[in-house]
Amino acid sequence: MEGIKCPGFKAAGVVAGLKKDGRKDVGIIFSEVPATIAGVFTKNKVTAACVRLCKERVQSGNAQAIIANSGNANCCTGENGMQDTMKMSKLVSEGLDLPEKDVFVASTGVIGVPLPLDKIKSAMPDLIGSLSENGFFDFAESIMTTDTVRKIINRQGIIEGKPFTITGIAKGSGMIRPDMATMLCFICSDVEAAPDKLHTMLASSVDDTFNKITVDGDTSTNDMVLLMANGLSNVELNTASDMKVFQKELDVILKSLAREIVKDGEGATKLVEIEVKGALSDRDARLVADTVANSNLVKTALFGQDANWGRIIAAVGRAGIDIDQDRIDIYFDGVETVSGGALSGNVSAEYEATKVLEKSEFTITIDLHIGKGNASVLTCDFSVAYVKINADYRT
Amino acid sequence: MEGIKCPGFKAAGVVAGLKKDGRKDVGIIFSEVPATIAGVFTKNKVTAACVRLCKERVQSGNAQAIIANSGNANCCTGENGMQDTMKMSKLVSEGLDLPEKDVFVASTGVIGVPLPLDKIKSAMPDLIGSLSENGFFDFAESIMTTDTVRKIINRQGIIEGKPFTITGIAKGSGMIRPDMATMLCFICSDVEAAPDKLHTMLASSVDDTFNKITVDGDTSTNDMVLLMANGLSNVELNTASDMKVFQKELDVILKSLAREIVKDGEGATKLVEIEVKGALSDRDARLVADTVANSNLVKTALFGQDANWGRIIAAVGRAGIDIDQDRIDIYFDGVETVSGGALSGNVSAEYEATKVLEKSEFTITIDLHIGKGNASVLTCDFSVAYVKINADYRT
Repeated sequence: MEGIKCPGFKAAGVVAGLKKDGRKDVGIIFSEVPATIAGVFTKNKVTAACVRLCKERVQSGNAQAIIANSGNANCCTGENGMQDTMKMSKLVSEGLDLPEKDVFVASTGVIGVPLPLDKIKSAMPDLIGSLSENGFFDFAESIMTTDTVRKIINRQGIIEGKPFTITGIAKGSGMIRPDMATMLCFICSDVEAAPDKLHTMLASSVDDTFNKITVDGDTSTNDMVLLMANGLSNVELNTASDMKVFQKELDVILKSLAREIVKDGEGATKLVEIEVKGALSDRDARLVADTVANSNLVKTALFGQDANWGRIIAAVGRAGIDIDQDRIDIYFDGVETVSGGALSGNVSAEYEATKVLEKSEFTITIDLHIGKGNASVLTCDFSVAYVKINADYRT
Repeated sequence: MEGIKCPGFKAAGVVAGLKKDGRKDVGIIFSEVPATIAGVFTKNKVTAACVRLCKERVQSGNAQAIIANSGNANCCTGENGMQDTMKMSKLVSEGLDLPEKDVFVASTGVIGVPLPLDKIKSAMPDLIGSLSENGFFDFAESIMTTDTVRKIINRQGIIEGKPFTITGIAKGSGMIRPDMATMLCFICSDVEAAPDKLHTMLASSVDDTFNKITVDGDTSTNDMVLLMANGLSNVELNTASDMKVFQKELDVILKSLAREIVKDGEGATKLVEIEVKGALSDRDARLVADTVANSNLVKTALFGQDANWGRIIAAVGRAGIDIDQDRIDIYFDGVETVSGGALSGNVSAEYEATKVLEKSEFTITIDLHIGKGNASVLTCDFSVAYVKINADYRT
């Protein structure tokens, strides 16, 4: 499959046998030349071996390859787990003749199960042999767990007349919460940029995208976002205005991937934006948006296509911030359903709101009318399928 | 149905037509003589009219009747809603010839729908006519919403050779979270006690019972616990040691009702205690217990009878407190499954843990091994039925 390339990068994804169902489960992204790198990592205090390794290696700002596996998180696997992560890195270093310190490792899957390193070792010749500029789709497939679709996007931009490319690949559909990265995401670009500049732009993008999504309120132990830049476009990001152009494209990439993740949320049938206005501060607005976006009662009502605004206002009330319940308005895609904390005077409002809920994507707006704080969070509904997926995940 | 009485109290529950399915939906508890009262109320900042009324009236410390309805929360119903609550109180005051200020009102059900007061008015003669010392079961039925069983318990105690009685009735199975009352609960006793003493004992009991349960992490707008004491036993609670005896029985009552609520949690198939030890402080331990007890990924794994301790340790890691992941031990009913942050050396541990998860009640113990803080929370599993119940609740 062709279509998505990033100059100077090759990728691959193959079957190592970590997943029981024979799907691809190990992949590599490789830059033909040394690249710079920046990363952001999970805020969970329990972290996988790969997160610890990458956090250490990212400090050098240099990278040339990333190996990622699905089907096993290699988390809470003790000292052996860290050894296995180092060995994965070594296999790539030897196979591609790179310094070990320039290899990054990512894992996703079940926590607490020893990594079957021998399977990855056996797959290595095939994996390295498959590396190709057209390999991004295979790589995207190899990091999927409960994801039902590959998440991959490509953008071009122009700086001073010269084109550059950004390619982003992500995975994630459960253990997703608006608190840092919360999934795996790898971004390649052919721009040239110092690691600190990459980090500034990446952190800004993540804050406005991956930090504003939720599926189930759980935060993973393995999440990371890595951004590699290999400079082959000869587009150098030096000035603030160059960075602004790149940032804009990066934002589009991450926003699109974040949206894909929520849309592909485990069992999700609806993509819903929770928009909060009129709070005393942006922080307060964010607390309300998070509380509503993570309320099981709200999310099951969304699944039931029930404009049960009582559950929304109840969630607002327990967000722990100042409100005046008699001033709260709630809109479903602009249909004013709640006005001044009670059912709106519009007699057909609930009927119209129910029509909105039948759509697959819509916005719920909550106006607190006590200040100027705003925030928004993307969430999904909570379906019977979510429970089935997560009750049966390991069986 | 006989069996549960409380001297000097009468109760009743009848069908007013607020619930669509013809079940009982309005009830009264009435003390033949003026009583003292104490109450604790929801911490949600969005509150129903009845909560506001009761919070005001409880300040006098006097009460003689409680009217409660299910099928409608009369919350977020504006000024008319408050008028309706006042009218409910007036109907009881007229029907039983009591001062209005001594009547308390409680509602539970859907938020945001105007209360059909005429239905309650029409039912009033039947309701008052049904008042009987054997009416507690009918009352308990009349406050049920998604509850599948009545929650009622009766205890006797002895102070200075004289017997006293406590009767407790509760409802609740969704919108339950370990943060204050989170359901309706009414307790009657024939002891004599000043309102401030009642409040001290009630607050202590609630803190150790209703504040330590969770079903879905949502907090209701209508929750209250009211404790009435009518003095007819001639047992006066004056000394600290008298209060201790009463407190002990009250604790048993509330503990039993709290347990019943979680056991009857919407769609629940398992009752699980999350016990946390070895945290830096009790507060830290509580944060961990709450985070694990409310994790959807943990709760769906419990439903799936999967000893997926990786989800438990991941929830511990996102609780926002200090931990050392390499020191964490996890037990399922005493079976050590995780030792030092990784799978225990006991090769049959996961098998044995899975056997524990097949039980309907068990304890998960998390030992952080970094301090002396303890806490425990009662939770339930998260089933397909929970989603179905809450997706279809209003339809």
